[in-house]
Amino acid sequence: MGIYTRPVLEINLNNMVDNYLRLQKIIAPAKPSAVVKDDAYGLGADVVAKALFDKADCRDFWVAHAVEGVKIADFVSGANIYVLQGIGEDSLELFKKYRFIPVISSPEMLDFWLNHKISGIKPVIHVETGLNRLGFRTEDLDKLSDECKNDFSLVMSHLACADEKDHFMNSHQLENFKFIRHKYFPHLPACLSASDGAFLGPDFCCDMVRLGAAMYGINTAPYRPNQMKNIITLKAPVLQVKYLPKGEFVGYSATYRAGTDKKIAIVSAGYGDGLPRSLSNVGKVFFNIGKSMAEARIIGRVSMDNIICDVSSIDNLKVGDFGFFVCDDYTLDDIARDAGTISYEILSRIGKNPRFERKIIK
Amino acid sequence: MGIYTRPVLEINLNNMVDNYLRLQKIIAPAKPSAVVKDDAYGLGADVVAKALFDKADCRDFWVAHAVEGVKIADFVSGANIYVLQGIGEDSLELFKKYRFIPVISSPEMLDFWLNHKISGIKPVIHVETGLNRLGFRTEDLDKLSDECKNDFSLVMSHLACADEKDHFMNSHQLENFKFIRHKYFPHLPACLSASDGAFLGPDFCCDMVRLGAAMYGINTAPYRPNQMKNIITLKAPVLQVKYLPKGEFVGYSATYRAGTDKKIAIVSAGYGDGLPRSLSNVGKVFFNIGKSMAEARIIGRVSMDNIICDVSSIDNLKVGDFGFFVCDDYTLDDIARDAGTISYEILSRIGKNPRFERKIIK
Repeated sequence: MGIYTRPVLEINLNNMVDNYLRLQKIIAPAKPSAVVKDDAYGLGADVVAKALFDKADCRDFWVAHAVEGVKIADFVSGANIYVLQGIGEDSLELFKKYRFIPVISSPEMLDFWLNHKISGIKPVIHVETGLNRLGFRTEDLDKLSDECKNDFSLVMSHLACADEKDHFMNSHQLENFKFIRHKYFPHLPACLSASDGAFLGPDFCCDMVRLGAAMYGINTAPYRPNQMKNIITLKAPVLQVKYLPKGEFVGYSATYRAGTDKKIAIVSAGYGDGLPRSLSNVGKVFFNIGKSMAEARIIGRVSMDNIICDVSSIDNLKVGDFGFFVCDDYTLDDIARDAGTISYEILSRIGKNPRFERKIIK
Repeated sequence: MGIYTRPVLEINLNNMVDNYLRLQKIIAPAKPSAVVKDDAYGLGADVVAKALFDKADCRDFWVAHAVEGVKIADFVSGANIYVLQGIGEDSLELFKKYRFIPVISSPEMLDFWLNHKISGIKPVIHVETGLNRLGFRTEDLDKLSDECKNDFSLVMSHLACADEKDHFMNSHQLENFKFIRHKYFPHLPACLSASDGAFLGPDFCCDMVRLGAAMYGINTAPYRPNQMKNIITLKAPVLQVKYLPKGEFVGYSATYRAGTDKKIAIVSAGYGDGLPRSLSNVGKVFFNIGKSMAEARIIGRVSMDNIICDVSSIDNLKVGDFGFFVCDDYTLDDIARDAGTISYEILSRIGKNPRFERKIIK
């Protein structure tokens, strides 16, 4: 019997590269690009970008903030690094030093850019097509000079409902985007879709697609089974297996009471490791005992460092065995469903605690 | 007008030290100790531990994992660093090198310790009193030899419902703890309470209290107004202010539709920065316009990097102004209430994204 205490996050970069290459075929002839913002959704933008650059010839990367670009710059020499949140006084020097490409999303940011232009860099313009998040509305586009319009390298927008194949917003936004391209930027390459839009057909793929969630294994087309490979295994060791007598309570605020005698396991991971507290009394932990995974229900509140689960029906479980929170049999989409959120938020959370032991499979 | 893109996290370590010193008075003559696990709840265990060591003479620190102890070791030379999740094969070398004190919570971990004892280190024993998380049950304590029992330095347990002053679990756990101390460890100093138990009176404070949440400004005694100072300001710049015509939708899945013409602001922070997606359509953003804070409701889904809010009633708001998500007027407890969770989970999330600009006030 081994005794362990640390949670372990395994990231399968081979599967990630496979997903990227599969998406590349689906969107062809549109060009793929990789979204590695939020530290590659928490997985580590440096290792993720390097794998895509080295093994999939990716030469276009999207980050949210310039500081995120700095983390990948050395690993993707010569590639385009687009910065989605744009440029400002708090990032100008990084743009100059690393030659990042800003995404300009408002008239005010455009003024800033025109006052601080970096020679040889042509920014992206972000236009509003119906999401009502970042982007120029047509009344603002009307005010742009022809010279200014010709100084961009790409026109982009973003879809609101692309994970629902038949949602009316998809065609609505596509029509808006076509209208804007035709009227204001007839000669610019265009990028409308992220990896949910990748599955909506060539009209939506335009010249370039921003591949993020699907590359990380999330099913961004949930109206049919996932075509992507899981890339994440999150597991943590059992610290204790013990008897829970009928009638006793479990966890903070005593939200669980044993209706019969039970056997419980305390597993060494919690919301501090990014496992949502909303899994309290509803989430699951899996144990690799015997031929197949055994399922245990989380009981009581998820706490910062520990999760308690009911292992009454699992024989032979012992201290030092690992409980699985994300694996091939219970993916990011599954844990997100149980936690009442989306896979993107789960993924963004679980990579961020430095106390994880990280194992990169490549 | 300035243009900015990065979210900013301000941490007021002076207020934190004040909270610690105030708690120290409340629990006296019990000895205070500081909980800096989970990277000091995401705030940075190194700067937090150093401030407590230098300015409040704190000499006892609790982390969850040995790797977390490494981050503070250089800043708290000579202090006791207790490791709550205990010791195992994956941390033994760190215990030897840094002389951390393990918390032993199961018979199996005790066997591991007895096989790998580190000379001069006396571990803590964690006993079960009703939380049914980590800790020895009495049937396991019965099996300990006298020699073994005398080799611990401290006996600890943890309360389940200490944030509810009159919860029956409090007296139930206290009685269990007294029984165990008297029967098994009559000569050991004892530690039962964290910062919620600190307010339950001297019986609960025993010899030492583990101060965490309250020190970070959370109200751990929510049956009366908070006596602690807020230590966190989280703000992010407005990237765009724009018109939202009546009938248009906002954000992913089009969950918000404007019933009248609106003015909206897009603020540069999202769940990637730790702001829960459960704030979608219910959370608030505050703007420091004029004499007092103006409140804007979050509309549509919180996305990874951006939050959209209704600023129709806020005059003079402009791009580059900052929206506040946590501040003295809207604390961790307030945002947790709106997000449907507890302040601890909010705090644990928001510090973890390296794209924040961090400002330490000390």
